Amino acid sequence: MIPVLEIFGPTVQGEGAVIGRKTMFVRTAGCDYRCSWCDSAFTWDGSAKDDIRKMTPEDIYEELREVGGDTFDHVTISGGNPALLPSLAGLLDLFKEKGIVSALETQGSKFQSWFHDIDELTISPKPPSSGMDTDFDKLADIIERTAGQQVSLKVVVFNKEDLTYAKKVHQLFPGIPFYVQVGNDRLDEIDDEKLLVYLAGRYEWLINLVMPDPEFKSVRVLPQLHTFVWGNKKGV
Amino acid sequence: MIPVLEIFGPTVQGEGAVIGRKTMFVRTAGCDYRCSWCDSAFTWDGSAKDDIRKMTPEDIYEELREVGGDTFDHVTISGGNPALLPSLAGLLDLFKEKGIVSALETQGSKFQSWFHDIDELTISPKPPSSGMDTDFDKLADIIERTAGQQVSLKVVVFNKEDLTYAKKVHQLFPGIPFYVQVGNDRLDEIDDEKLLVYLAGRYEWLINLVMPDPEFKSVRVLPQLHTFVWGNKKGV
Ligand code: SF4
Ligand code: SF4
Repeated sequence: MIPVLEIFGPTVQGEGAVIGRKTMFVRTAGCDYRCSWCDSAFTWDGSAKDDIRKMTPEDIYEELREVGGDTFDHVTISGGNPALLPSLAGLLDLFKEKGIVSALETQGSKFQSWFHDIDELTISPKPPSSGMDTDFDKLADIIERTAGQQVSLKVVVFNKEDLTYAKKVHQLFPGIPFYVQVGNDRLDEIDDEKLLVYLAGRYEWLINLVMPDPEFKSVRVLPQLHTFVWGNKKGV
Repeated sequence: MIPVLEIFGPTVQGEGAVIGRKTMFVRTAGCDYRCSWCDSAFTWDGSAKDDIRKMTPEDIYEELREVGGDTFDHVTISGGNPALLPSLAGLLDLFKEKGIVSALETQGSKFQSWFHDIDELTISPKPPSSGMDTDFDKLADIIERTAGQQVSLKVVVFNKEDLTYAKKVHQLFPGIPFYVQVGNDRLDEIDDEKLLVYLAGRYEWLINLVMPDPEFKSVRVLPQLHTFVWGNKKGV
């Protein structure tokens, strides 16, 4: 059984390698990390405990169709850390059977053999500002095991120390498509326009740091597009 | 000789398949179209006639290095319509020799054999609001000749009629990665914050049209990120 917190969409993927892609979202419960700025803390801090539903792959697929109808061919699995769940194997089999393209993001703390069934795998190791420590051996192991697949690395950056960390990750795995994403440190802002102007400014700040740096060449710098449109609202 | 209007960067690619990618820009002069909302009209309306420089591939490469130093490995050629210029062949050869990844955007009105040397080719046929007519035979011919390359289709959308046109393009070439991009119809807005809020709203408008539509499935919906950051400023 898969512990599910949200099923919503279709909407645009707001981040990373397939930014803008029309997708449905399945958000699983549980995380082995406790990032200081986690924008999905309800997946692990107990606050949404009563909303967790234990679902079979068939349940999930049925609900995806109920919510999204015939409008989609792509599903993003996010968390929390979905890599904690061996039971996702069955869901990915079902997606394959139904012709659904799958995407998944995880921080790279744990490998599952079903990683091989993900069409677009994003590994997003967490920088110092998160308060978490990266297990670089584990990360290298995951990168190695998923060689030949469509994998990208994404580091969220809140400050210069995070950018130094991002560079380290990029240099360790120069062959993997690399994304830096500007962090949202205004999770409590409820004025969408104010947040938009603020985050566009933060995006420019990050661009201005990365552009003159010869050690970042083959790199993509992106914001979170969904926060540009819907602010801090969930489930859109 | 190549007629060049601008060489600038490094900055982020604001649009399309490699949105966010660190890149230099080379803007060539001349266009066979006259789109009503062209944001680069100075490339063809005569207003920047005196700024056109006839450059060799070597001149261009040298200036790219002067401006961008050792900070980049990617160059985007834009226009105008660079596909008017047979002479780009030599520049692409030089890029290959120097290990530079190349991207180019054209509206699909003309083929050049050097299309095969472009690493990331974007074909952006123009919708009805442009006032231009698409030669669909020519477009199909280009798509066919570039089969096997990294090609994407991008349609800029200003209104519902444009979106219907976008759908037609997508359905004609279902195997080609497809992007719809929200158009900027406020080219005269000089207040960047006002423009940002307006364009984020237009992006939401486009998302809301595309998401419920079962005929758009494998599609990516994107804004122009550079206008989110720099408004209508040129050369950034
Ligand atoms: S890894 Fe992701 S879900 Fe887990 S705490 Fe960090 S940001 Fe939140
Ligand atoms: S094809 Fe491009 S450069 Fe030419 S007129 Fe249209 S928008 Fe402008």
